[in-house]
Amino acid sequence: MDDAQRVAAGYRPLSEADLPRYLAGLPGMADRLGGPPAGWTVREVGDGNLNLVFIVKGPAGGVAVKQALPYVRLVGESWPLPLSRAHYEQMALAEQARLVPGRTPAIRHYDERLALIVMELLEPHVIMRRGMIAGTRYPAFAAEIADFMARTLYFTSDLALTAAAKKDRVGAFAGNHALCKITEDLIFTDPYRVAANNRWTSPELDDIAAAFREDLDLHVAVSRLKLKFLSAAEAMLHGDLHTGSIMVTEAETRVIDPEFAFYGPMGFDIGAVIANLLLNYLSQPGHETEPGGRRAYQRWVLDTVGEVWSRFRDDFLALWRANPTGDAYPPDLFQGMAGAARLEEERQAFMDRLWRDTVGFAAAKMIRRILGLAHNLDLESIPDRRLKAAAETAALGMARTMMVETERFPSVDAILARAEAAGASVRA
Amino acid sequence: MDDAQRVAAGYRPLSEADLPRYLAGLPGMADRLGGPPAGWTVREVGDGNLNLVFIVKGPAGGVAVKQALPYVRLVGESWPLPLSRAHYEQMALAEQARLVPGRTPAIRHYDERLALIVMELLEPHVIMRRGMIAGTRYPAFAAEIADFMARTLYFTSDLALTAAAKKDRVGAFAGNHALCKITEDLIFTDPYRVAANNRWTSPELDDIAAAFREDLDLHVAVSRLKLKFLSAAEAMLHGDLHTGSIMVTEAETRVIDPEFAFYGPMGFDIGAVIANLLLNYLSQPGHETEPGGRRAYQRWVLDTVGEVWSRFRDDFLALWRANPTGDAYPPDLFQGMAGAARLEEERQAFMDRLWRDTVGFAAAKMIRRILGLAHNLDLESIPDRRLKAAAETAALGMARTMMVETERFPSVDAILARAEAAGASVRA
Repeated sequence: MDDAQRVAAGYRPLSEADLPRYLAGLPGMADRLGGPPAGWTVREVGDGNLNLVFIVKGPAGGVAVKQALPYVRLVGESWPLPLSRAHYEQMALAEQARLVPGRTPAIRHYDERLALIVMELLEPHVIMRRGMIAGTRYPAFAAEIADFMARTLYFTSDLALTAAAKKDRVGAFAGNHALCKITEDLIFTDPYRVAANNRWTSPELDDIAAAFREDLDLHVAVSRLKLKFLSAAEAMLHGDLHTGSIMVTEAETRVIDPEFAFYGPMGFDIGAVIANLLLNYLSQPGHETEPGGRRAYQRWVLDTVGEVWSRFRDDFLALWRANPTGDAYPPDLFQGMAGAARLEEERQAFMDRLWRDTVGFAAAKMIRRILGLAHNLDLESIPDRRLKAAAETAALGMARTMMVETERFPSVDAILARAEAAGASVRA
Repeated sequence: MDDAQRVAAGYRPLSEADLPRYLAGLPGMADRLGGPPAGWTVREVGDGNLNLVFIVKGPAGGVAVKQALPYVRLVGESWPLPLSRAHYEQMALAEQARLVPGRTPAIRHYDERLALIVMELLEPHVIMRRGMIAGTRYPAFAAEIADFMARTLYFTSDLALTAAAKKDRVGAFAGNHALCKITEDLIFTDPYRVAANNRWTSPELDDIAAAFREDLDLHVAVSRLKLKFLSAAEAMLHGDLHTGSIMVTEAETRVIDPEFAFYGPMGFDIGAVIANLLLNYLSQPGHETEPGGRRAYQRWVLDTVGEVWSRFRDDFLALWRANPTGDAYPPDLFQGMAGAARLEEERQAFMDRLWRDTVGFAAAKMIRRILGLAHNLDLESIPDRRLKAAAETAALGMARTMMVETERFPSVDAILARAEAAGASVRA
């Protein structure tokens, strides 16, 4: 019996009308919402691709309710997807909350039978992608997302865990392969071949899309990244860490929706954040209401890219120095002052390797959002078709170089310089 | 409840006296052995480090019975080790038999409660290490072990399996971490630090053992290998593929004892085979009864090292070309003649990367057999202490270069040349 079947018995998708009675039956929930259930408002707001999401509010407070559907919502019942993803999501949420308190929505209730999670309602947070399209700065973001990634990746890796504890966790997430398969297909494969799911701005991008389907250097590069995604069990990943999985206020960052969580290569999460910031950066000329009106915001976005990586690097290194509790790089082998210096040198080399992975994965995430199935609202919502195509073309050119000639980006500054050049071409 | 506890209820170690009654109760076993149980001979022959092994013979045939003890036999009850290793061993044996029919002992019965496997009795096979110490050639070995490694590694990797099937297997072996931990400690850690378990030929090797404990380049290199062992879930490994886990006749090769099986880096298995051949090569002067009497045999051993790798490489590539059924390197991305050529180029590059891993892991295996807990009979049984120390010193020097300056060995020929130089130093 696989995971999908395990949760199928007794499952039914809830409707807005079902929610008050369901929630009233959960311990403490009536107190949390306040007043009689008849007075609670329920709104289905799922604008993601996979699930039902309800916002329920009462006089005393509110909750968010996320329920998995047995298929991909965006596509329909023709694309089945196991309900077990709710199990992995609540497992990841619990682990993230333990490692980075307060950075994820608190779980109020998990119902395995219904593949449903009742969560803290995040208010007045907005989806970061929407805020960035509107040109809103989030001063807390870089430090908080860097801290989130550093803690979740470091403390679930062989640098912090014993091998036994880590292998247990790898095993615990191994069943989430249907969600991984979406990534494997949509990010690492489809954009590089003829696939029914692909779409792009046509005819403007027809030539570059065709060129990417024939570009064998790119195909080798993306295949190496895919192999790493398939086989490098480095840390527990969020697995879908784009700006649509981040909710923000100017003062606070929250990370949601870790249903793609599994043990994979660390660079995939970091690359996801950086890719989505870069795409937003390149989309900004398309959102200007007056010429150059978003130049200053673009500067903030690029500064944020630099800050995310440099803070992540610093945070991760600090965690490693302070918590060498894992089975990798045993302290016994690096004793004394010379040992400490050599280990520090190796830590820096480790971060350099992780940076290269990050650049490659970021490139893959940029390309899939322009040539694959799921696009970014940052680019999709650009009203001027010429500007949209120009931004997408610039992003694809930059991403190809990042993936095939990764060594040209030894530091995040090289990425920022390349982004500025790409950004200038959008305005040209 | 962990694996160790799961099999503990009802477990008891069997004695020679218990075996006939136990076996007589298994379906078909009385027929296989023949005659009444009273006429069966039972001999406990476990000379390994971990388990009980019984040879049971009757008038019609024989079986081997392997039973896990809840501790490391070599050390005693102070070093507990879960009985679940029998579960992983029979799972690996079944998988290996499916992938390479006839290359492992057939399983006659598996008793989870007793952590016991009844297997085909291999006759007249001998442990390869003993045969090589005696100077016996095994003409079938190189081709058969190369085929075994190519098939078991290829068909359990992302090159052959879908991601879902592979993740299921990774999960199925994730619980075998107590056995992995032995490798992590004894191979990748202890030889490089002060550890109660270490021993070496003293005082002859005192200086080099001390130097290895202070050699930070070596500590970084072995730590990178350890991290790969901990996190690279590339394929199902045998996990302990030295010449003591191989039984041979001149016509046939059998692989036994895969209780260390788990999903790890492919180069670890290949490196184990090569390391043990190299140690035997360097030990040969110590086994000569007349000066130079083993020179021709040494040539055969080195030729075998070359043949193992080149045949493995050819076999693995042929399997990849013929069975591109996995989720990695999707054929769709390498279409037409240009695509085929580029994929072939990448396959060669993949094998070059795997070779580098192999050299590093081989080095780790050589060092642990000289400075760590478990030594090789090849070296241990050398009667002349000076020759033993010379062989060990030569092996350590070669292994250090292999691990720290791996790029100096771009091909197996470079290894063979270095081995010849090391071998000459033993005779000097």
